[in-house]
Amino acid sequence: MKKFSTTVRVRYQETDAMGVVYYANYLVWFEIVRTEYLRSLGFPYKEIESRGAYLMVAEAHCEYLAPARYDDVIEIQTWISSVKNCSLAFEYNLFLEKKLISKGRTNHVFVNRDGKPVKVPADLRPLLTSAA
Amino acid sequence: MKKFSTTVRVRYQETDAMGVVYYANYLVWFEIVRTEYLRSLGFPYKEIESRGAYLMVAEAHCEYLAPARYDDVIEIQTWISSVKNCSLAFEYNLFLEKKLISKGRTNHVFVNRDGKPVKVPADLRPLLTSAA
Amino acid sequence: MKKFSTTVRVRYQETDAMGVVYYANYLVWFEIVRTEYLRSLGFPYKEIESRGAYLMVAEAHCEYLAPARYDDVIEIQTWISSVKNCSLAFEYNLFLEKKLISKGRTNHVFVNRDGKPVKVPADLRPLLTSAA
Amino acid sequence: MKKFSTTVRVRYQETDAMGVVYYANYLVWFEIVRTEYLRSLGFPYKEIESRGAYLMVAEAHCEYLAPARYDDVIEIQTWISSVKNCSLAFEYNLFLEKKLISKGRTNHVFVNRDGKPVKVPADLRPLLTSAA
Repeated sequence: MKKFSTTVRVRYQETDAMGVVYYANYLVWFEIVRTEYLRSLGFPYKEIESRGAYLMVAEAHCEYLAPARYDDVIEIQTWISSVKNCSLAFEYNLFLEKKLISKGRTNHVFVNRDGKPVKVPADLRPLLTSAA
Repeated sequence: MKKFSTTVRVRYQETDAMGVVYYANYLVWFEIVRTEYLRSLGFPYKEIESRGAYLMVAEAHCEYLAPARYDDVIEIQTWISSVKNCSLAFEYNLFLEKKLISKGRTNHVFVNRDGKPVKVPADLRPLLTSAA
Repeated sequence: MKKFSTTVRVRYQETDAMGVVYYANYLVWFEIVRTEYLRSLGFPYKEIESRGAYLMVAEAHCEYLAPARYDDVIEIQTWISSVKNCSLAFEYNLFLEKKLISKGRTNHVFVNRDGKPVKVPADLRPLLTSAA
Repeated sequence: MKKFSTTVRVRYQETDAMGVVYYANYLVWFEIVRTEYLRSLGFPYKEIESRGAYLMVAEAHCEYLAPARYDDVIEIQTWISSVKNCSLAFEYNLFLEKKLISKGRTNHVFVNRDGKPVKVPADLRPLLTSAA
């Protein structure tokens, strides 16, 4: 199982009146690390879409263990936890100064332009399974 | 178990390049119906905060069953599924033209200004437990 | 010149660590009142798009006179200040409890799917000019 | 006049159903480059806030010359165009592959925790004026 990490710096826009990062933004960060992970595997998500395959989110889960604040640098770690016929699951760990602050998971289904499930693209599958 | 509903109309800002509502925005809608539900119980969240109690999110979960698009009117239904010493859980159903398009759940902990867990405010507890 | 108003209630997600509404969100509100205004003229923006015409933003301007906070109810007023061959301008006033808190302006160009400027749709033009 | 640049990669969340970056997000990017510029001058905005001074936005203006799309890398350039007693103005140019796609301007007022205008912090002023 290969792990992949990237970092984000908390934007003022991502904070809320409680002085911490608004909870929905963790899902935005999950998307960022997915994008960068697929790029690192040689498959930028933009290219997957340009062939008419879309990675729809079927399920998202997030645990919030400690808050993040404006200007914090967050390490977002991801790995692929499952590859099936038409679907794919990612897990995530978020770290602030080496401390785990959040854990997450998303399940995705590959769909075509009409939203119908399609198989994982043939040339992407071996890369995903070897990474999982 | 009392159910409470409100509606949102999908904003252009909430859509993404796939032509559907971006997945993180469902958590924003969960927040909206929580706010309106607490208001309907006679406890606007703003008043809870003004006493120094904050409803931190500890966990969020969302299933995406069918997409929502720009200008769609979404019915967001919520109910309280558990009330404990310091914590509270909500569940959610989202409907588009009476069709269930998403299911969600959030767990919350009451904390003080320093982020330390505190008990559910005494005058709020009976309202929450009778609604659960 | 016809004026049109709608209201929004400030979402927690729209606030920032300063405890006020994050400045970019005023442009989201401008979009909401434009959408509702076009609907009130009998031309939902979704229908305009379904014919292949898009109202691209060419310019946006906003003045922030007083802050807005979580749960505030904001009245957003708009009117059409100019209709040209391919373009359209809206102005905005935002009120909190009858007090003007923001003024804005956006200029738009009608474009086709390829982003090329096109004339204001023929059946929409008389409605816009009579409203301006 | 010193110019400062940073880059952002367009997030899926920042796109809309038109397939381009939603217009309000340009103001988020302006905030990012302001943050990085102040850091480069030795004055992280977080430190300014920790002393009780806040850089409120009084006015924002943005011109949209060409669209940006998912995964594009945008160069955001900023410079300080004016420093007054209590206020500060930034200008911005956005580039996609060396092509200017947007121009912007924001005016800011330094305020205290109560939102009252205060003078530009004494040790920050010389850095700002020498950069302007």
